[in-house]
Amino acid sequence: MTRRVLITGATGGVGLVLAERLADDYEVIQHGRTPKNPEQEKVLRTADLSSYEEVLALMDGVDTVVHLAGSASPESSWDDVLEANIVGFRNTLEAAREAGVRRFVFASSNHAMGMYDRDEQWPVYPHHLPRADSLYGVSKVFGEALGRFYHDEYGIDFIALRIGWMSENPGETDVDLLHAMWLSPDDTEQVVRRAIEADVTFGLYYAVSDNPNRRWDLTNTMLELGYRPKDSWTEQPGAVVPGGAEAPDDWPKGS
Amino acid sequence: MTRRVLITGATGGVGLVLAERLADDYEVIQHGRTPKNPEQEKVLRTADLSSYEEVLALMDGVDTVVHLAGSASPESSWDDVLEANIVGFRNTLEAAREAGVRRFVFASSNHAMGMYDRDEQWPVYPHHLPRADSLYGVSKVFGEALGRFYHDEYGIDFIALRIGWMSENPGETDVDLLHAMWLSPDDTEQVVRRAIEADVTFGLYYAVSDNPNRRWDLTNTMLELGYRPKDSWTEQPGAVVPGGAEAPDDWPKGS
Repeated sequence: MTRRVLITGATGGVGLVLAERLADDYEVIQHGRTPKNPEQEKVLRTADLSSYEEVLALMDGVDTVVHLAGSASPESSWDDVLEANIVGFRNTLEAAREAGVRRFVFASSNHAMGMYDRDEQWPVYPHHLPRADSLYGVSKVFGEALGRFYHDEYGIDFIALRIGWMSENPGETDVDLLHAMWLSPDDTEQVVRRAIEADVTFGLYYAVSDNPNRRWDLTNTMLELGYRPKDSWTEQPGAVVPGGAEAPDDWPKGS
Repeated sequence: MTRRVLITGATGGVGLVLAERLADDYEVIQHGRTPKNPEQEKVLRTADLSSYEEVLALMDGVDTVVHLAGSASPESSWDDVLEANIVGFRNTLEAAREAGVRRFVFASSNHAMGMYDRDEQWPVYPHHLPRADSLYGVSKVFGEALGRFYHDEYGIDFIALRIGWMSENPGETDVDLLHAMWLSPDDTEQVVRRAIEADVTFGLYYAVSDNPNRRWDLTNTMLELGYRPKDSWTEQPGAVVPGGAEAPDDWPKGS
């Protein structure tokens, strides 16, 4: 039977890509605030995540929630993070549990561990203790902790993906950190598909592309989810690689 | 100069002990809701922690906050945890930062890691990933994560004590888990004094007495804070030790 997949925040950058690309294989329910195109306007469900009843109404028959909604910037204020990423996230997870949803895929973030990066304490592994670089990052630590509790206590599958920076065009920036955490649209699709289907029931996983300067360990993402990143920012149009085109080969360190 | 120490939740069990015992060496400010004796009634500050302005008014001249206030039961509802342990805690930490408080001692809990215990995955170390056993436990993970961010970002000292079960009379229960996590009033006083004075600026520390069946590692509490637990529940009046009085000697496992 075709899985019904609810994408919250389907109007964001990652959400738009997934809503389009998962539609061939899944019955996709799109949730969001402001539709980004006429097609999306026809189907978008506009529940306010701060209302538990509205969120619960989204869950009918849902097999997997891909939860992208929320305040998505490291600059977010406490009030925004509290409403969207703490209260709104809890409502969504609790509603999924109440409705008997099988699996919850949570868009976590590198920012849950961003202070390691700021201190150049590389590489960063999933088993390192949380060390957020922002209130936004703290809210992602909260989400991972609540998800682990819901998995342990209620048995719902919980897959946290620490998603990097998705962009069609990584060459548009020269910020090393963004290059390091780049996640191509194709790799985004792949890792989320694997998170929906993989034969694991809980885990914290980094999700970035195969960038030569990446600092986050992908071993369990590859081993447990079966993720095989195909892309690197260095191979994209407009990429200016420090040290020139030959650099990636002898460039194992994040710099 | 005598440190001014603000104890939030000074009307709870741990708070009452500390307010009395720290008064000789510190200028103690007691915060709480319902005074427990006539003396406390005279001095108690009754700020509502959900009001940032009221919390900020407590911080004048404070050197160290010992934050015990909050919902303290693993049975706590989401609404209680959200108001007291997430919003109230954040207000207290932010007010401390704004007021230039030197150090924040946070009453965390074994329940931040309670699922390891439920699964008998012993011993539990401070470097293990959070694995809460309740919404209360999740709120403590949130508190530790926010504290780590505040320490890294703003430089405020943050010492998280995963405080066990403080009781005058551990013989009153036959629950093994409570015995294992027992923290005597004397050891409570000692570990909090060390948390106020120790020459470290950040850490997550277990705080339990020297119970033979304890499952939580005290190595960094001893090494970094200088804590030396003096008591064991097995030596208290009314203690019924499984296997009889000889048992503790050959009783390294938690059971």
